Amino acid sequence: MDLSKTLTVYGRKPVLEALRDPTLDPHRLHLADKNKPGGIISEIETAAKNRSIPIAHHDRLALSRISKNGKQDQGVALDLFCPNFSTLDIFLTDFERNPERKFKALLLDGITNPQNVGMIIRSSCAAGIDAIFYPKKSVATLGPLVIKASVGTAFRAPIVFCEEAFSCATALKARGVQIAVMDSHATLSLFEHQKEASTVFVLGGETEGASETIKNAANLSLRIPMKNGVESLNVAVTAALIGFLSQ
Amino acid sequence: MDLSKTLTVYGRKPVLEALRDPTLDPHRLHLADKNKPGGIISEIETAAKNRSIPIAHHDRLALSRISKNGKQDQGVALDLFCPNFSTLDIFLTDFERNPERKFKALLLDGITNPQNVGMIIRSSCAAGIDAIFYPKKSVATLGPLVIKASVGTAFRAPIVFCEEAFSCATALKARGVQIAVMDSHATLSLFEHQKEASTVFVLGGETEGASETIKNAANLSLRIPMKNGVESLNVAVTAALIGFLSQ
Repeated sequence: MDLSKTLTVYGRKPVLEALRDPTLDPHRLHLADKNKPGGIISEIETAAKNRSIPIAHHDRLALSRISKNGKQDQGVALDLFCPNFSTLDIFLTDFERNPERKFKALLLDGITNPQNVGMIIRSSCAAGIDAIFYPKKSVATLGPLVIKASVGTAFRAPIVFCEEAFSCATALKARGVQIAVMDSHATLSLFEHQKEASTVFVLGGETEGASETIKNAANLSLRIPMKNGVESLNVAVTAALIGFLSQ
Repeated sequence: MDLSKTLTVYGRKPVLEALRDPTLDPHRLHLADKNKPGGIISEIETAAKNRSIPIAHHDRLALSRISKNGKQDQGVALDLFCPNFSTLDIFLTDFERNPERKFKALLLDGITNPQNVGMIIRSSCAAGIDAIFYPKKSVATLGPLVIKASVGTAFRAPIVFCEEAFSCATALKARGVQIAVMDSHATLSLFEHQKEASTVFVLGGETEGASETIKNAANLSLRIPMKNGVESLNVAVTAALIGFLSQ
């Protein structure tokens, strides 16, 4: 099992929905020994059997290690195969093999609101963004709230997991990738920017914006021209404008 | 007092914030007789006096008629002058006087989520959309939740109030305005569409989309091309793409 391409969902209703969704690729169902049989547990077992998905039984503690959320897993977890998931290491290896390939990517930096993260994933996936660099630290966890807000697109999004945002940005920059931060005081507009090299657009949290260390390391600072004295846009809206309207 | 250009906010904290915001234009403070003096009430009175804003006192019932929300007004309401607000009647009269003026507008149709309505207002205001047609029926009320989600831009947005969406669409169409609905099955892409006439883009609710009657009355059906099998975008994201595109 390729862990980097696996997302484990949990909770009885989310797991049942995932098992019944023909666009998803579940590869193992995990159940707690102590689940009371019948009801929705039977429905989950039947749905798994109908798709020939292996079922593993665990004690509660082992299950909570799998779901990583013992409080909310309700004794049920499901590993989903997400073919477009990757890690920074794999991404960098692929890129070094084929450095001519131009890409447009996002790097999430301190976005703690799961609603915004989910909407960013949904818009990026629709726009065909090549990679969403997703730090394990400082960003809302890729859990039920993010998945719900992504309207299920998280499972097929090109998410590239990394440890944290700054080291991800510097690793990419060292390989010739442009690091662009969005800044309302920048002189160059996002819509005028001519993409010559592969670019990673850094998206910061709603209040703080991108972190200072990344701003200092960036090659490019871009603004979205705004009228009526509006000072900022929702970060998911910014992601969509980058995805659909920038070159 | 021009009621069509007035938005009444209520609640102690929102009113105090509005009184202290130099970009806003409050023109009357309303207080309930029974408010306990001191504390935040004193701060509100001081803030109003500092800006020479008249203060009116009312019994609770009269105040609740002014705030239109007696349960949540906390005995405090504030009329704000919003210079860009209008009504459909005024808009149509202006348009008939100057039919050569091209405009790009949105019509909200059944968007009941205040978060989405607020985000649409914020993005449209930033993009310089000329009008947001805002039906009194079937759309989340322009109240605290919408205002908060708009990050304060609602007060300066070009909001045009109308009774309901369909009659607004037909009144505009009768005057030569193009009515465009967003539809994932449409053949023409939003990004290919050449704006020749003034256009109103109809934005429907997340689940249902635009209403059937409006779809039938529309001149144009446009899709946003989406990748990775994504079927729809958040309505506020759609609004931003319409707004920032082809300026």
